[in-house]
Amino acid sequence: MTLSDAKRCAYLGPAATFTEAALIDLLTEHDLLDTVERVPMRSQNEMFDAVRSGEVDAAVVPIENSVEGGVPATLDALTRSGNLQIVAEAVVPVRFVLAAPPGTVTLGTLQTFGTHPHAEAQTRLWMQEHAPQAVYHPTGSTAEAARVLGAASAGGGEPTSSGPAATAGVSYQAAIGPRLAAETYGLEVLADDIGENSGAQTRFVCVQRPGLLPEPTGWDRTTVVVGLASDRSGALLEMLEQLAARGVNMSRIESRPTGDGLGLYQFSIDALGHVREARMAEALRGIHRVAGRVQFLGSYPMAAAERTELNGTKKAVDPRVADEAFDAAQAWLDEVTGG
Amino acid sequence: MTLSDAKRCAYLGPAATFTEAALIDLLTEHDLLDTVERVPMRSQNEMFDAVRSGEVDAAVVPIENSVEGGVPATLDALTRSGNLQIVAEAVVPVRFVLAAPPGTVTLGTLQTFGTHPHAEAQTRLWMQEHAPQAVYHPTGSTAEAARVLGAASAGGGEPTSSGPAATAGVSYQAAIGPRLAAETYGLEVLADDIGENSGAQTRFVCVQRPGLLPEPTGWDRTTVVVGLASDRSGALLEMLEQLAARGVNMSRIESRPTGDGLGLYQFSIDALGHVREARMAEALRGIHRVAGRVQFLGSYPMAAAERTELNGTKKAVDPRVADEAFDAAQAWLDEVTGG
Amino acid sequence: MTLSDAKRCAYLGPAATFTEAALIDLLTEHDLLDTVERVPMRSQNEMFDAVRSGEVDAAVVPIENSVEGGVPATLDALTRSGNLQIVAEAVVPVRFVLAAPPGTVTLGTLQTFGTHPHAEAQTRLWMQEHAPQAVYHPTGSTAEAARVLGAASAGGGEPTSSGPAATAGVSYQAAIGPRLAAETYGLEVLADDIGENSGAQTRFVCVQRPGLLPEPTGWDRTTVVVGLASDRSGALLEMLEQLAARGVNMSRIESRPTGDGLGLYQFSIDALGHVREARMAEALRGIHRVAGRVQFLGSYPMAAAERTELNGTKKAVDPRVADEAFDAAQAWLDEVTGG
Amino acid sequence: MTLSDAKRCAYLGPAATFTEAALIDLLTEHDLLDTVERVPMRSQNEMFDAVRSGEVDAAVVPIENSVEGGVPATLDALTRSGNLQIVAEAVVPVRFVLAAPPGTVTLGTLQTFGTHPHAEAQTRLWMQEHAPQAVYHPTGSTAEAARVLGAASAGGGEPTSSGPAATAGVSYQAAIGPRLAAETYGLEVLADDIGENSGAQTRFVCVQRPGLLPEPTGWDRTTVVVGLASDRSGALLEMLEQLAARGVNMSRIESRPTGDGLGLYQFSIDALGHVREARMAEALRGIHRVAGRVQFLGSYPMAAAERTELNGTKKAVDPRVADEAFDAAQAWLDEVTGG
Repeated sequence: MTLSDAKRCAYLGPAATFTEAALIDLLTEHDLLDTVERVPMRSQNEMFDAVRSGEVDAAVVPIENSVEGGVPATLDALTRSGNLQIVAEAVVPVRFVLAAPPGTVTLGTLQTFGTHPHAEAQTRLWMQEHAPQAVYHPTGSTAEAARVLGAASAGGGEPTSSGPAATAGVSYQAAIGPRLAAETYGLEVLADDIGENSGAQTRFVCVQRPGLLPEPTGWDRTTVVVGLASDRSGALLEMLEQLAARGVNMSRIESRPTGDGLGLYQFSIDALGHVREARMAEALRGIHRVAGRVQFLGSYPMAAAERTELNGTKKAVDPRVADEAFDAAQAWLDEVTGG
Repeated sequence: MTLSDAKRCAYLGPAATFTEAALIDLLTEHDLLDTVERVPMRSQNEMFDAVRSGEVDAAVVPIENSVEGGVPATLDALTRSGNLQIVAEAVVPVRFVLAAPPGTVTLGTLQTFGTHPHAEAQTRLWMQEHAPQAVYHPTGSTAEAARVLGAASAGGGEPTSSGPAATAGVSYQAAIGPRLAAETYGLEVLADDIGENSGAQTRFVCVQRPGLLPEPTGWDRTTVVVGLASDRSGALLEMLEQLAARGVNMSRIESRPTGDGLGLYQFSIDALGHVREARMAEALRGIHRVAGRVQFLGSYPMAAAERTELNGTKKAVDPRVADEAFDAAQAWLDEVTGG
Repeated sequence: MTLSDAKRCAYLGPAATFTEAALIDLLTEHDLLDTVERVPMRSQNEMFDAVRSGEVDAAVVPIENSVEGGVPATLDALTRSGNLQIVAEAVVPVRFVLAAPPGTVTLGTLQTFGTHPHAEAQTRLWMQEHAPQAVYHPTGSTAEAARVLGAASAGGGEPTSSGPAATAGVSYQAAIGPRLAAETYGLEVLADDIGENSGAQTRFVCVQRPGLLPEPTGWDRTTVVVGLASDRSGALLEMLEQLAARGVNMSRIESRPTGDGLGLYQFSIDALGHVREARMAEALRGIHRVAGRVQFLGSYPMAAAERTELNGTKKAVDPRVADEAFDAAQAWLDEVTGG
Repeated sequence: MTLSDAKRCAYLGPAATFTEAALIDLLTEHDLLDTVERVPMRSQNEMFDAVRSGEVDAAVVPIENSVEGGVPATLDALTRSGNLQIVAEAVVPVRFVLAAPPGTVTLGTLQTFGTHPHAEAQTRLWMQEHAPQAVYHPTGSTAEAARVLGAASAGGGEPTSSGPAATAGVSYQAAIGPRLAAETYGLEVLADDIGENSGAQTRFVCVQRPGLLPEPTGWDRTTVVVGLASDRSGALLEMLEQLAARGVNMSRIESRPTGDGLGLYQFSIDALGHVREARMAEALRGIHRVAGRVQFLGSYPMAAAERTELNGTKKAVDPRVADEAFDAAQAWLDEVTGG
């Protein structure tokens, strides 16, 4: 099945997180926003199980952050799950707002606020400058504080079965989270873009059961996980030479720990190109030969923003590794060997 | 100054975290436990500022986790801070206990518990099986819940100036955290080793102002950050060849995002060997020549556990890249060129 | 056409040279000695023209000598001629005899001897020790002296139209050359194996028009010429990495001058393996992509002696680059991409 | 001792060969033509023995020909001799003339001519077109025919003790050889530049006992011989990577047979740069570490013609491997390690 046929898409919840924002972007881009149901879930493992079982048709998860790098929980869950493939990506700016129920509080009168510890760390400098009197109260997600606050403001505020306890008398007056959360839960934005890294972005991927591979677009990314036996010196170099010999560039590489004890390293890699292009196919076959283990996680179009950046700063594919060069090499060999 | 002269060492607080456990291990190993003051701090940036200003003599931070990989906050703060060097490392098992004030509650009667969201994620399966009725309450660190609970149990429970608000009527009955936290705050352990990854470990490093480099021990690690210009294809391979040409192996490599906009990649690398060994010195000089930027973060002895593992599974240094081979090559060249 | 169908084979004459000995070996090995006519010719260019025009069906030429390395005249003529392929090889010991018409002279009474200047250089030490009184007379080939001497002894000795002048009163009494020459022209061997390098060997190749490629035998050699543009630094390394990425080893590499002026280098290469094996085919296609020019000169079985030596001292093909590994990689990729 | 102090220089004789022409060029360039005695010798081994024993102060030999590549006899004698170093090079055009005693014969009346078989091969096309009636008579060197002819013409023509027999009635009327030979022996040039490769050149090197290395000029060449153990796959690639990691380019590489039996390969290499430049020194030390054996044969200024060509077509040394980059890398490392 392709994304176009999807009816239900899971995302890392709760509602109104940056992940839901990414899913909304993806659905909008494919004109599916009105026809696809968005299903919040609690963890990558839960989501991937749901995709495999058919409970949902796709799942959207964060894979890489411009400040923190790769997202370990996603990379590891993808590696462990098997039988899943990335079919699309979206890049979303990480932009925090401070919000409260309309008319209840101002920056000057704010006494307490809630958010996830990561978001608190990224907005601490701004809060210390603009509302130094406000005391921090940790919550389980960036959207959770907004949800609880909105529910309490609306007169509810009961705990959900899957979430943390929250009393009707909520212990904080404002929430820090994505603008989508403020909008979703009817809060008023007191301040916008209060994070330290104002240009921060997160890259999200959409995962489905293996089936029809997305068509090459000329601006694609391929994600693989490669396991290397540690007892062969230079194994990483040897693996990279399989990419280099075919002119394949990488946009991300990370050595990942394995749970299988010592002596086995694995690398999570994003490479530029599509497995239906000759240079990528031959490079992956080469890695399959020399590495202990390789897992193909998908070839998919880059997000529009990424394509634009590459367009401006990089050259097109080296003609020596374009499909035409591979075809010409095969034709030459056929001719000289009478093949 | 060396670690032996240190009087005050900072660690990522609050007290009784895994980081303090690592610091205690390091001090014990150097017979410094009774003479060095342990100072909890709130963030890597705060700690590194304190080291640079001389407010403390050293700082201990997590750098790599066997489940999640490199610790972005540490790697980035080290890269950005400059003028700091790693002088030692310690490896600590990540082992969670469930603890409560003595005699107050049992697994069967537990209604609420507090911990950091990461720790909750890693112990969720165990809790759902053994105390499914208990509701989760997020806190700001793994030790925070224990501290608050211990303080309330002792009759106090006031908020600290740097921490989140906590009322005398604490909203949870038990805490999940390191054993050190339970011991520190006078809690009783209800269950031990309740995490999903029972073999998980975190590697911590001790950072000081640059000064006397630790002596080579034969089992050392060198940490560097290398920035590569993106407009030169194969730049990563070229950099790795500088290591390979001198037979230097890596134990960790991660591509790291930079905040400086697009077009500049940087790699955080742990390599095996000491900069006072010829192969490492020559490799680093080579990287300095070919890379846009390289930052030396220290050469330091591996933790004892790591040495033992390498001892068992790997060969000693290839004789072709041992210091003796470099000396012999220099002697040969001097002789044949009359140098 | 294959060697089995050949009726006329040219060799670098005159008759009874080491090249004819190689041709005799090859024909004997294929049970063709009685059915194939051996045709002496004067130069590589003449022979290759004759093969291309169909005047002969094959040509045997020296390609590599264990003392002097590659034979430039052959390598260059092969490169320039085009439309020819090597289909077989033979290795012949280079062993010189001193011979004279029966009963005419002894080592002690010898006053003059004739041979090609190269053979004189390789036997000078022996002659100075055993017949220091004998004066050297240069001739145009190692067999020429024996031919002239035999003809004179038989009462003839007239000059040939294509050869050097020789008078009925030949100016030398003995000849140094291959044993085959002594036998062919009815001379008596005065001394055997008088060269300096008693283990010297020459490798000869048999060249035909392109047609049916010899089948892979598991012990094959492939010969190519690769032209590299000089303005790309590291071009040679890049080309060798195309071989290394597929685990292809070389048995000979020589940089060759080109007549086309400066700035273009070319390399004559013998690699181990057959173009019908996946590793060699992919490596040659890779070289075709990255190099300015590549010429395929054939895949052919090694001489029996070479196979034996490799058998004893080297491992079989690395399983990671055997055809089975390439097939497995293709099957894996087809499966994971739904191909 | 340096070339400037030389009193006697050997060359590959006899007199008036291309090798003597190269020696004359070298002596002229150093203003030594009037003070240095030129001593013809018969072989590379004889010359190198004479240099080592002090009988002569230097020896000039051909090392590379633009048509035939490396000169095996020179490369092997240099490799085997040890304790010798190349201190200079000269490049001489290979240009053949046809010459005879003045007034004795014309192209139309020429019946016989003498020369070395190599020279006959390179002038055969011209002779067949312009003097098809002339019969070839082989001689031992390109200058020998001219010498004999000149001596006979002068009324002498006796054999020398080291040369082949020649009767007063010389059996040929004209000689093909270098213009220097015609001039030396008083012959008249009947035709000039009659070789097939009118742009052909030979590179000659001047060899001395090791002593003061020539100073770097910025346009230098370094010659080495590297022996590789055959039982390590990729040994050649590994060796070339030692050059590539320091940005050292090659101008010639040839695999050379060894007389030591099978399983040991050696490579004769000319690399661009001087051993007193950091990139070359470090690369050679690297090769010393990884290769089984390496022999340094000298760093010396390129011939003026070669410098001119490189000047026009190539960039200067890559700034990343210039001495300044090595110095900067060392300074950086000293600073960051407190060295």
